[in-house]
Amino acid sequence: MSSPLLVSRIPAPRQPDTVIRVGERVAIGGPAITIIAGPCSVESRGMLLDTAYAVRAAGATMLRGGAFKPRTSPYAFQGMGEAALELLAEARELTGLPVVTEVLDVRTVSLVERHADVLQVGARNMQNYSLLCELGRSAKPVLLKRGMSATVAELLMAAEHVMANGNTNVILCERGIRTFETSTRNTLDIGAIAVLKLETHLPVIVDPSHAAGRAHLVPALAVAAVAAGADGLMIEVHPSPATALSDGEQSLTPNDFDGLMDRVRAVASAIGRTVSNPLPLLALGTG
Amino acid sequence: MSSPLLVSRIPAPRQPDTVIRVGERVAIGGPAITIIAGPCSVESRGMLLDTAYAVRAAGATMLRGGAFKPRTSPYAFQGMGEAALELLAEARELTGLPVVTEVLDVRTVSLVERHADVLQVGARNMQNYSLLCELGRSAKPVLLKRGMSATVAELLMAAEHVMANGNTNVILCERGIRTFETSTRNTLDIGAIAVLKLETHLPVIVDPSHAAGRAHLVPALAVAAVAAGADGLMIEVHPSPATALSDGEQSLTPNDFDGLMDRVRAVASAIGRTVSNPLPLLALGTG
Amino acid sequence: MSSPLLVSRIPAPRQPDTVIRVGERVAIGGPAITIIAGPCSVESRGMLLDTAYAVRAAGATMLRGGAFKPRTSPYAFQGMGEAALELLAEARELTGLPVVTEVLDVRTVSLVERHADVLQVGARNMQNYSLLCELGRSAKPVLLKRGMSATVAELLMAAEHVMANGNTNVILCERGIRTFETSTRNTLDIGAIAVLKLETHLPVIVDPSHAAGRAHLVPALAVAAVAAGADGLMIEVHPSPATALSDGEQSLTPNDFDGLMDRVRAVASAIGRTVSNPLPLLALGTG
Amino acid sequence: MSSPLLVSRIPAPRQPDTVIRVGERVAIGGPAITIIAGPCSVESRGMLLDTAYAVRAAGATMLRGGAFKPRTSPYAFQGMGEAALELLAEARELTGLPVVTEVLDVRTVSLVERHADVLQVGARNMQNYSLLCELGRSAKPVLLKRGMSATVAELLMAAEHVMANGNTNVILCERGIRTFETSTRNTLDIGAIAVLKLETHLPVIVDPSHAAGRAHLVPALAVAAVAAGADGLMIEVHPSPATALSDGEQSLTPNDFDGLMDRVRAVASAIGRTVSNPLPLLALGTG
Repeated sequence: MSSPLLVSRIPAPRQPDTVIRVGERVAIGGPAITIIAGPCSVESRGMLLDTAYAVRAAGATMLRGGAFKPRTSPYAFQGMGEAALELLAEARELTGLPVVTEVLDVRTVSLVERHADVLQVGARNMQNYSLLCELGRSAKPVLLKRGMSATVAELLMAAEHVMANGNTNVILCERGIRTFETSTRNTLDIGAIAVLKLETHLPVIVDPSHAAGRAHLVPALAVAAVAAGADGLMIEVHPSPATALSDGEQSLTPNDFDGLMDRVRAVASAIGRTVSNPLPLLALGTG
Repeated sequence: MSSPLLVSRIPAPRQPDTVIRVGERVAIGGPAITIIAGPCSVESRGMLLDTAYAVRAAGATMLRGGAFKPRTSPYAFQGMGEAALELLAEARELTGLPVVTEVLDVRTVSLVERHADVLQVGARNMQNYSLLCELGRSAKPVLLKRGMSATVAELLMAAEHVMANGNTNVILCERGIRTFETSTRNTLDIGAIAVLKLETHLPVIVDPSHAAGRAHLVPALAVAAVAAGADGLMIEVHPSPATALSDGEQSLTPNDFDGLMDRVRAVASAIGRTVSNPLPLLALGTG
Repeated sequence: MSSPLLVSRIPAPRQPDTVIRVGERVAIGGPAITIIAGPCSVESRGMLLDTAYAVRAAGATMLRGGAFKPRTSPYAFQGMGEAALELLAEARELTGLPVVTEVLDVRTVSLVERHADVLQVGARNMQNYSLLCELGRSAKPVLLKRGMSATVAELLMAAEHVMANGNTNVILCERGIRTFETSTRNTLDIGAIAVLKLETHLPVIVDPSHAAGRAHLVPALAVAAVAAGADGLMIEVHPSPATALSDGEQSLTPNDFDGLMDRVRAVASAIGRTVSNPLPLLALGTG
Repeated sequence: MSSPLLVSRIPAPRQPDTVIRVGERVAIGGPAITIIAGPCSVESRGMLLDTAYAVRAAGATMLRGGAFKPRTSPYAFQGMGEAALELLAEARELTGLPVVTEVLDVRTVSLVERHADVLQVGARNMQNYSLLCELGRSAKPVLLKRGMSATVAELLMAAEHVMANGNTNVILCERGIRTFETSTRNTLDIGAIAVLKLETHLPVIVDPSHAAGRAHLVPALAVAAVAAGADGLMIEVHPSPATALSDGEQSLTPNDFDGLMDRVRAVASAIGRTVSNPLPLLALGTG
C-alpha cells in the first residue's frame, strides 16, 4: 500500500481513527461499538416495525433492511424496492434508528440517498467501480462490504475509489470469504479485522450473519469480532426466521439477539470498549 | 440446476448447442472454434490497427479491445472510453473483424452497443445484476466472464439473468479462478469447460491470458482449453507488450500469436473440430 | 457425521465435554482455558529454560517446543531431535510445566512418548494415517492440528482414526487454513471453533501464531479465539524473536506474552470462563 | 527457487529433461507419453488381471493399483495390503506391465519395494518428510502426487526432500487442487503443468481421475493435460465401476478407456509427441 493512498494510516503523522457520524447519536469508529440490526429484506411494514422496535430495545442503534436485493437466481425475491425505502424511513421516524440499506444500481443512488442514512455496497458489487465512483459523490456515508474473494488490499482499493471521488466517510465491512470449507456459509476472516485496523484509519465492522450462515453460530462469531477489534456489528434479526423470504437460516430471533447483546457488552467491556448507548425509550414513540 | 432454467441442457428433448452469429462470418458455438484476439486496452489508433491486422493475418476472426477498463486502483489507466469505441468501430470497418468490448456501467450500454458487436461483462461484474438485466434487453450478444470466485452454478445463474430478460445470445467465458496458488495469476478451471458443455447449451470460450498472467504460459493453456472442448479462445495480443498500459506481462506478440495459431489448429483437428476460417485478405477493401 | 462416530456429540444422550488431564494440574476442555506457550523450536538449553520460566510466570500451564521440525525445505533447520526431548523433560522438571511436542515419524513415537506429556500431530501430517493409528495405541494424549486445507469433517475423521485405535484423549487444534488471502500467513477459521464445539465432545484449542504469521496480529486472534469458545491457546514465545531459527516473525517476546495474558483473562472472564491457574512459583524450583 | 536446488532447471547450462526408465520398455519424461492405468484398489485377483489385460490391450504401458489405501474414514476399506502387492507382481509377470502402488508408511517401504516398480506418495503424504526421506534412499523411482493444497513451489520442495537423500528418479503428479468449486472433485491445475515443465527437469504426469471425480469428465481433462505438455497420464479403470470398493464414480470402464486412448493419441500427435507403444501382445508368454 503506497503512502499517498487516502485510506492509509501511514502518511505521517500517523492518521488517527476516522469517526463517522450518522444522525445525531451514532458515531462509528470511536470507542463505542455500534450495533446495526434488522431483517435481511424488508418484507412488510409490520415485520419491519416489529423488528426495529425489538432491536432498539435490545440495544441496537442502527437499523438494517434490504430494499433492493441482489439474488443469485433471477426468479428469487428481489426486494420491495422503493416501497421498502419508504418503510425504512418510517421506521427511522418511529424508532429514531438511522437506516442502512443496499444500493445496487448507479441509477438508484439518488433515490436510496433520499431515504437512507448510510448506503451499503454489497459483496457482489465491491468492484463495481461505476457504483463506487457514484457513491464517491454522495454526501451520505458508505458501508462497503468485502467481496467474497477480495483480498484486504483490494477492499482498501475499493474504498479508495469512493474516497478519491470525494466521499471520505467509508465504513469497511468484513463478512466472510469464500474458501473450501463448507461447514459455515463463508469463512469469517477474523485476522482481516486486525490487519485493517493497522493499515487504515477507516472504521471496520463485521457481519457475522453472512459469515456463519446458520443462526446458532452467529453469537460466537459476533463476540469474536468484538474481541478482535471490530468497531461495530451488523446482524440479521427477523421476527420469524423460519418464514423469512431471504436468509432465514442465519437470522436471529429478537430474543436471541437480546441475549447476544449481553454477551457483546461483556466482551466489549473486557477489551476496554463500550457498546453505543441504546436510545432512551421514553424520548421516542411519537416519531 | 432445476430443469426449467433457460441456460439448461436438460429440458427434454435435450437442448442442442446454441450457435451465436456475430456479423456475417462468425458463428460461436458451432463446430469451428472462434479465435478472438487483440489488446487488453485500446491505447491509440496506430497500435489498435496494427494489432487488428496482425491477428487477422494469423487467423483471428474477432477483435477484442478495452475501452472502459475496470482497474483495482482508481489511479491506474481507466481506458480511452468513447474514443476507443470509435477506433474499434474503425478497425472493424478496415479489417472486417467484429468487435467485442467490455461494458462497465448500465448508463453506457447503449453507447457501447452502437459501436461493438458483442458486449462483454467482466469478471468483477458477473454478479452486477443491474448490468446483466440491462444487457438482457440488448439485441447484441453478451460475452459473460466468470467471476473470479464464482462457481459454475453461479455463472450459469448470471447468464440466466440475461436470458430471463430476453437476450438468449450469451457466450460464457472461463478465465481462471482465484485459489491459493500464485505461480499463475489465476487457476484456469479446465474442468469447468467440460462441466459447462454438459449442463448448458450456451457456447463456452476460454481466456487463457488472464488465467496465465504470464505470456509464456498462455499457449499451453490455450491448446489445453481447445482439447477440453472450448468453443473459442480470447487472447491478449499487443504489438509491444513491454510498453503496454495494462496487462503487458500476459500479452503475446503478434509473432507468438501466429505461432500459437498453428498449434491451436493442430489440436482442434485432433479432436475433430476446425478453427474458423480467417477472413480472405483480398476481400477487404483498403485493409 | 453419522451418529456412531466416537468423536461425535450426538449419540444420545448428548455426549458431555471430554476433559483431558495432563499431569496433576492441567485439565484441557473444562471451564478453565489452558494456555500452552513456548518456542517454535528448542534451540538450546538456555533459551528453552528462559522461555519456560517466563511463560510460567505469565500464566502458561503447559510448555510447547519443537524437537523434530517438519520443514518445507530439506536444507532448513530440522530441530535438535532427541537432545531437544531431553531438554524439554528437564524444563518440565524445573518448572512443573507439562510438555507438548510434535512427533513426525511412527518410528519415534515411543521415544517422544518417553519424554513428552502430550504428542502433537502437525498440520502436514493430519492425514498421515499410519501415524494416527500408532498414536491411537499410545497412553499419552494427542494434540491434533488441522491440516491446512482440511475441512472440519476431515479433522474429525482424523481424530476418529486415533480414537478408533483406543486413545480417546484427543485435543483438536485450529491453526488457520489456506485461502487466497495473503495478509496473514493462514486464515484463522474462527467459525470452526463454534462448529467443532457443537459437533464433538473433544476439547478445541487454537494456535493463533501460525494463523497470524506476524507477531503483532497474534493478540487479536488469541482473544477472538477465547471469545469464540476455544478451550485453550497455543502460542509461540521466544526470548529473541529476531534471531529465532524458525518462525521468528510470529513469535511473541515474553513481555508481549505477559501483556496478552491479561487480555486473555479479561475476555475469558467476560464469557464466564477462567484461565487455568498458573503454578505457584514458590512450590517449584526444586523440580 | 534458488539455483542450487536439485529439482531445478536453472543451474547453467539449463538442465535437460530427466527421463526415468521403468523396467525394460517404459521411459517417463521422453518424447513418448506414458499411460498408466488400473483400478483404484486391488480388490481381487480376477478383477486385477481382467483390468490389467484390458488396459494393456488399449495401450497402457504401466499398471496402477492400490494395496494400502489412505481413507478419510477409519471404517472404510483400507486395501488388501501385502496380498495386493503379490497380486500386482503376478499381474506384472503375466502382462509385462510394470507396477506403481502407494506406500503409506516408512515401515512398509521395503515390502512395497520388493513388489512394485514405482513407489507412489499420495497427496495426503506429500509433506510426510519421514516418508520422503526414506524413499530418497530407495533404488526405485518415486511417483510424488501434489498435496491437495500444496503450491507448485511446495511440490518441488517435497521432491527435493527425496532427491537430497539420493534418489533422483522422481516423477511429479498433478491431481487437482482444493478450491471453492464443487462441480469437480478437485480443480485440475492445468497451468501447473506448464509451470513445472519450465521450472524443473523432472517428468510431470497428470491424474485426471482424482481431479474430475466423475468418469464422464475424465476424458476432457486427460486430453487437455496432454495438450498442456504432460509427460504421462494415470487413469483409474475398473471392470465394473458401479461395484468398486473405492472411487467407482471416477473410474472408466475398459471400453471407455479404450476410446479415450484414441483421443489421447490424436492430441499427442497434434503437439508433436507420441504415446508409448503398447506392448506386443504376442511377445508375452502366457498372458
